[in-house]
Amino acid sequence: MELLQKVAETIGKIKGQKPLVHHITNYVTANDCANITLAAGASPVMAGDPAEAEDMVQLAASLVLNIGTLNASSVAAMLAAGKRAISRGIPVVFDPVGAGATPYRTATARQIISEVRPTVVRGNMSEIKTLLGLAVQTKGVDSTADEADGAAVAEALAARLGCIVAVTGKTDVIAGQNRSCRIDNGHPLLADVTGTGCMATSLVGACCAAADDPFVGTVAGIALMGIAGELAQKTLQPGEGIGTFRIRLFDAVSRMTPEDILREGKIS
Amino acid sequence: MELLQKVAETIGKIKGQKPLVHHITNYVTANDCANITLAAGASPVMAGDPAEAEDMVQLAASLVLNIGTLNASSVAAMLAAGKRAISRGIPVVFDPVGAGATPYRTATARQIISEVRPTVVRGNMSEIKTLLGLAVQTKGVDSTADEADGAAVAEALAARLGCIVAVTGKTDVIAGQNRSCRIDNGHPLLADVTGTGCMATSLVGACCAAADDPFVGTVAGIALMGIAGELAQKTLQPGEGIGTFRIRLFDAVSRMTPEDILREGKIS
Amino acid sequence: MELLQKVAETIGKIKGQKPLVHHITNYVTANDCANITLAAGASPVMAGDPAEAEDMVQLAASLVLNIGTLNASSVAAMLAAGKRAISRGIPVVFDPVGAGATPYRTATARQIISEVRPTVVRGNMSEIKTLLGLAVQTKGVDSTADEADGAAVAEALAARLGCIVAVTGKTDVIAGQNRSCRIDNGHPLLADVTGTGCMATSLVGACCAAADDPFVGTVAGIALMGIAGELAQKTLQPGEGIGTFRIRLFDAVSRMTPEDILREGKIS
Repeated sequence: MELLQKVAETIGKIKGQKPLVHHITNYVTANDCANITLAAGASPVMAGDPAEAEDMVQLAASLVLNIGTLNASSVAAMLAAGKRAISRGIPVVFDPVGAGATPYRTATARQIISEVRPTVVRGNMSEIKTLLGLAVQTKGVDSTADEADGAAVAEALAARLGCIVAVTGKTDVIAGQNRSCRIDNGHPLLADVTGTGCMATSLVGACCAAADDPFVGTVAGIALMGIAGELAQKTLQPGEGIGTFRIRLFDAVSRMTPEDILREGKIS
Repeated sequence: MELLQKVAETIGKIKGQKPLVHHITNYVTANDCANITLAAGASPVMAGDPAEAEDMVQLAASLVLNIGTLNASSVAAMLAAGKRAISRGIPVVFDPVGAGATPYRTATARQIISEVRPTVVRGNMSEIKTLLGLAVQTKGVDSTADEADGAAVAEALAARLGCIVAVTGKTDVIAGQNRSCRIDNGHPLLADVTGTGCMATSLVGACCAAADDPFVGTVAGIALMGIAGELAQKTLQPGEGIGTFRIRLFDAVSRMTPEDILREGKIS
Repeated sequence: MELLQKVAETIGKIKGQKPLVHHITNYVTANDCANITLAAGASPVMAGDPAEAEDMVQLAASLVLNIGTLNASSVAAMLAAGKRAISRGIPVVFDPVGAGATPYRTATARQIISEVRPTVVRGNMSEIKTLLGLAVQTKGVDSTADEADGAAVAEALAARLGCIVAVTGKTDVIAGQNRSCRIDNGHPLLADVTGTGCMATSLVGACCAAADDPFVGTVAGIALMGIAGELAQKTLQPGEGIGTFRIRLFDAVSRMTPEDILREGKIS
């Protein structure tokens, strides 16, 4: 079966399964991540204290770790929850927000990768290059790196870590072991809304909870965000701007059907 | 005077009094809780540090405690603020988010109830059954419990704790001492937006601040959320989804009049 | 060149420069502050842990400090980041949310002012009067103070601290050393949305990052918020309320041109 077909089926399965997606994430975009997870048909929970992080994993179908506003307590929770999730056999999706921007972020991202061994790592080009040890210029949590060598970078990190790596940007690249693809969906307005990267990671968490194959789940989550961006932009009327676009993103995800994915998906 | 009449009057009084509703709450839905409190005509404040939790209570007309993203510091603040509020004679509304999902949540919810003695407890069926000591299956922070015995469960917990208990779900049940009612407002889309339970709790906080009788205040807050859900859904145009519905909830609460309540309220 | 002209030019420069605006802020309005910063054309980052607060300053063009949900850790981060920012010569914009409401807030606001020496202080009348040592009645984080003497209060605090002071309310007053102005833009609905004060502070951060003169940057940020409020209100259709108004604020900021500022600005 073709990859696009599998992606469409995965997105169709979420609403039927309503899987619980546990998040240890940041306070800037937590509400958006919860709402996009619900819009996709999954059930989000956010619980970032070490006193319960592992217990909540016991109920979950996948785990999302996001270091957007990391601190010692949340990092301890991420490490404990991540290890528990891997030992239970559920997918762990890691978003190394701002890796490269400060030594603390870079070191923490490396620690989570080395101790948890996440199933999927999703980041922008600056973050993924930082994890590969390449020199990058970062500007806060936004990427400033050249995107020309996306496929090579994603494949190199995927091979080194033995996991799936998604590099998102103008073109998205997803690399697994001996396979990779690119996605040409998306819209520049997505970069003008905070947390669209975090939301893409949450959608990967929702899709991986429903997919048999985490490579398919990762492609599905990234494609869903990109297609939603395109559909949201198309609804904008004269005078509407970034606030309305952001709301229409949730509309688009909540209404997305497998048929929409098959029609709009640009996966190659 | 009929209950529905009292509920409508309570909601009408909020905008005139603009009561301060202090929240110690979670970071996932704090913004929505603040905005829904403002939309109802009250004035929200969120301050979760033990260093000031009690001082802020001195200025407040009611206190909302929500354990959505609890940790040791916020729990300490909730206990201190809750006791101060009760000793000042202002209503304390407690939302035991996710009680039953992890031992930490269940134990904390019991501790707050036993030490603070809140005026109102609002939860879904899983949470309220957990507090009663009944065996439940939980899935994160969403309820999976059978709703058939809502009235019995609410009345049992209300009797045991000597407080008002609101169980929200397809039908909402509110039980006090020797009185109870059900509310048949609401819309299934409310379950597809994160934090509608938290927002209902905040509205109960706002209504209890304006009501002479916390039973009336609780019914008013729950009815306001349900009716807003119905009115928001009615405005949806083809192509609009969960993002737009969520925005229209705030519109509906901000425009709600006592006449709307009298016309739409289904309280029995 | 006239002040209004400089303000319009400053707002026009942000999109070209895309300056990084570092925030140590509260979890209630962080998402809105990030999105309004993006809407203005700047790049927000939120990182509140002491382990990285100074490192993130190294990358930033301005720093916003907001004590909305302060705690010991975030205050330590604000002090360290603020001192580093001043020593690097980038503008520090301080929002003393709720100063006067609790002793902890008042003492912390004074400590930040005395140790960091921020470039700009933006608050409502209650907060600014508290910082001047005048007796005020506060109600949570909203102002209850008389606004009649705004110019005198702003000028007194600006003179005492040697910084720029913006007092926002029905009329906004901005005072620097030997200069001041008033802004008569804005709309009463802005008070019905949580975080419009925080968002104004973030816009001041974005504008000060692009302006040569922080007085101009402060006026630009405050004027931008007020004009956006007016334009957002004008778009409201029958049946729309505070939820839609809030979304249109982001639309208005994201579409604002220097020409809009020149046409709508009421700076005197």
